[in-house]
Amino acid sequence: MGGTPQVMATAAEVRKRVGRARASGESVGLVPTMGALHGGHLALMERARAECGYVVATVFVNPTQFPPGDDFERYPRDLDGDARKAGEVGVDLIFAPPVGEVYPPGDCTFVEVTGPLVECLCGPHRPGHFRGVTTVCARLFNMVGADRAYFGEKDYQQLLVLKQMVRDLSIPVEIVAVPTVRERDGLAMSSRNSYLSAEEREAATVLYRALSAAEREAASGERDAVALVSGVSEMIEGEPLVELQYAELRDAETLDELARLDRRAVLAVAAFVGKARLIDNVVIEPRG
Amino acid sequence: MGGTPQVMATAAEVRKRVGRARASGESVGLVPTMGALHGGHLALMERARAECGYVVATVFVNPTQFPPGDDFERYPRDLDGDARKAGEVGVDLIFAPPVGEVYPPGDCTFVEVTGPLVECLCGPHRPGHFRGVTTVCARLFNMVGADRAYFGEKDYQQLLVLKQMVRDLSIPVEIVAVPTVRERDGLAMSSRNSYLSAEEREAATVLYRALSAAEREAASGERDAVALVSGVSEMIEGEPLVELQYAELRDAETLDELARLDRRAVLAVAAFVGKARLIDNVVIEPRG
Repeated sequence: MGGTPQVMATAAEVRKRVGRARASGESVGLVPTMGALHGGHLALMERARAECGYVVATVFVNPTQFPPGDDFERYPRDLDGDARKAGEVGVDLIFAPPVGEVYPPGDCTFVEVTGPLVECLCGPHRPGHFRGVTTVCARLFNMVGADRAYFGEKDYQQLLVLKQMVRDLSIPVEIVAVPTVRERDGLAMSSRNSYLSAEEREAATVLYRALSAAEREAASGERDAVALVSGVSEMIEGEPLVELQYAELRDAETLDELARLDRRAVLAVAAFVGKARLIDNVVIEPRG
Repeated sequence: MGGTPQVMATAAEVRKRVGRARASGESVGLVPTMGALHGGHLALMERARAECGYVVATVFVNPTQFPPGDDFERYPRDLDGDARKAGEVGVDLIFAPPVGEVYPPGDCTFVEVTGPLVECLCGPHRPGHFRGVTTVCARLFNMVGADRAYFGEKDYQQLLVLKQMVRDLSIPVEIVAVPTVRERDGLAMSSRNSYLSAEEREAATVLYRALSAAEREAASGERDAVALVSGVSEMIEGEPLVELQYAELRDAETLDELARLDRRAVLAVAAFVGKARLIDNVVIEPRG
């Protein structure tokens, strides 16, 4: 383990290299990222390293998943740093294609998941976002030809949308969910945390503090969705540097809205902290 | 060669069998059909047989490519006859899934090619048709995992749309185009020809007669698109049992409309003959 992994820019090179790994009997793990790697990404890579013979990470800031006016231009980019970090956790190959390799000139094809999974939470707030995610992931899955692809639970809705796509289109890859990695004070790791000033960084901890408080309420027997969600909302709205976008309690599989916590559920929030739009969630199992 | 091929209904069985063929070093050819096999399909299968070590044909009347009110219900179905015919040309395996195998309960994902390729010819006349074609073909390609997939030039626009999808999404399959197969009197073979009465069957020959006349005019030096197309239209409209839907001359690669035959072009027609909607085309290369 260690050493800087090879960096490739074309699908043809990657397919050839992955084909060689596969021919020698190795299973192939894929960790799609937009780079600016942090501990959350490294946890995905470590999991892939533990489960697969050959590990590919992609570094691609995907333009189609950023709605107009979003932070595509200023999204942090650091390929050299990313390659070094990925090497330290044993990634074999980094695929860092230029935009034209993923979206060739004249490109006009997309992949879209429709319905309840994309009509709630981040869906209405980021028009076209999930279509961009499914379109790029279908392409990366096809280009790399992995057995397993690793995604973080921090992007909970994305995880469900991708599982739906893979199931519906019979894409021969297994989507593996990896728990959210947090800073010591609970803030979910995110490349967008780098947008935060010191003061905003401190304020941003309210997201996980609010989610944790709701978890404790649920553990103490609270089952009413309005009570749980309004507790979260009030706590977040009490933080002047944070502007809440949504807080919702939904079925953990279907994302159907819940009136009561009577099944496995996800409590998810999105909020602006300065220029950063941050999301976080906890999955709650009602016990007893 | 000969003998009835194995018929499978699930993607899991097919993937296992194809995996075995691939493990023994065979290339895999796929011929997607809606069944009711005729000489056109058999030509696709023979070509696949000649080029691939293992040949899979799918028989699946795909509901999503029939616009509402179209002929999905009455589309001809004859799996036993299809299996026998496919066996005679050396097909190894028939994949005939039930609808729920291709579109599982709760399915909500589609694949769509947008833009000029789908906005002309059959596109506006069959809303959702090409989205249904790309969605089902992406699924079948993923389920079977073939190296090459064979399609007829009779469905010329479909061929271009599928090539675009495969290129844009980097699907690891090569689309192979096979020339249209015609009856002795020139009528393009189609499963929908079975809808025709004897009188309609006779009248339907006007489509290829008109296209052939235009080919001869082009060979004699006619370059004006209006002249070529109006010759075709007038000839078809002169046949009382045939109702022309469109006749158009378009760039053979982009389907851009042409004012002059100054590059490789496709002259394409669609017409109703009784209950049957028939399509046909010729590709014309201007010489000299």
